Amino acid sequence: MTKQAEGADERPARGRGRRPADEVRADVFRAVGEVLLTEGIAGLTFERVARLSGVSKTTLYKWWPSKGALALDGYFHAVEQTLAFEDTGDIRADLLHQLRSFVRIMTTTPAGRVVTELVGQSQTDEDLATAFRTLYSSERRRLAGERLARARELGQIRADVDVQVLVDQLWGAVYHRLLIPDEPVTDDFVVALVGNLFDGVART
Amino acid sequence: MTKQAEGADERPARGRGRRPADEVRADVFRAVGEVLLTEGIAGLTFERVARLSGVSKTTLYKWWPSKGALALDGYFHAVEQTLAFEDTGDIRADLLHQLRSFVRIMTTTPAGRVVTELVGQSQTDEDLATAFRTLYSSERRRLAGERLARARELGQIRADVDVQVLVDQLWGAVYHRLLIPDEPVTDDFVVALVGNLFDGVART
Repeated sequence: MTKQAEGADERPARGRGRRPADEVRADVFRAVGEVLLTEGIAGLTFERVARLSGVSKTTLYKWWPSKGALALDGYFHAVEQTLAFEDTGDIRADLLHQLRSFVRIMTTTPAGRVVTELVGQSQTDEDLATAFRTLYSSERRRLAGERLARARELGQIRADVDVQVLVDQLWGAVYHRLLIPDEPVTDDFVVALVGNLFDGVART
Repeated sequence: MTKQAEGADERPARGRGRRPADEVRADVFRAVGEVLLTEGIAGLTFERVARLSGVSKTTLYKWWPSKGALALDGYFHAVEQTLAFEDTGDIRADLLHQLRSFVRIMTTTPAGRVVTELVGQSQTDEDLATAFRTLYSSERRRLAGERLARARELGQIRADVDVQVLVDQLWGAVYHRLLIPDEPVTDDFVVALVGNLFDGVART
């Protein structure tokens, strides 16, 4: 949004020669993540990312055909470390830890709005919906599924449980409150999500 | 969408004199529900509803300030019977029955698309978001909560369980798969939602 940088948005890649693709992508992800986590999707433009990353718009468009794809790929990488699935051997503690990190990002940074707006727009934009699933949600599902499957192998989750259903009953339940905010996303809520599933809600 | 009816959309209320408001509203809900469940929101216009219900556009606008409000109020009433919460005394069976009805409406009629599009648009339209919560989701939440609270009173659900969290882990989990369709909404999924919560997923 800075005026003085206008017209400078096609600045070529820094230095001479071609940088390795991984390095270029890392610079782009850093730039996209920075914008999304501080300003949200309103601040994200190809021009801005080109300026911040020193990667040409031509290259950006070659790898990310749309702003949605750029946002999702960048966002996935920006939150990957924060949303990593720890494995201390205690599945309940690890889930609680991860869900709290997820809730913190979604409720205390512009990321919450970024994600809910992208899910929102995905309902009427098939390309964005595909980008969302391919570049973000299916990967998050896979990572959650891996951690849950390890707990199942150790007998901490029953063998007959489909761990993908747990993804919907944990993270999906949080999404539900974020997308249709009839009830707040509190720490008690997060604790109850894990407790209900692991303890069962029926009288014992 | 019928061409011949164009220009006839301001047809006054049938018969003479003023009909009772409840009767007028019922006619409107019937018209809105009919359109939404057969064609989805694309077919819904104030003109069309005025024609089908015999209620003037002036009256419609007085009671429902936007198409979103009209759609949500009409949809709520259209599905109210189908989505009623039975009470046979068996909470697991009743939940399964209700969830199956909900999933059937969402996956086999245009209603699924209506609801996901309204949730989608609600992410960037504050008025629609308010209408969605006021006219639809908070009422559905209240009805679900009442049935679950009765089960809790009977000791079928533990006294320390916040039944509103169960709403997110049952219907919210379904919404998650409808809004971000990485995984399908199958009958096995519905059965697992109830089973995971009532049996608990930890090894016993």
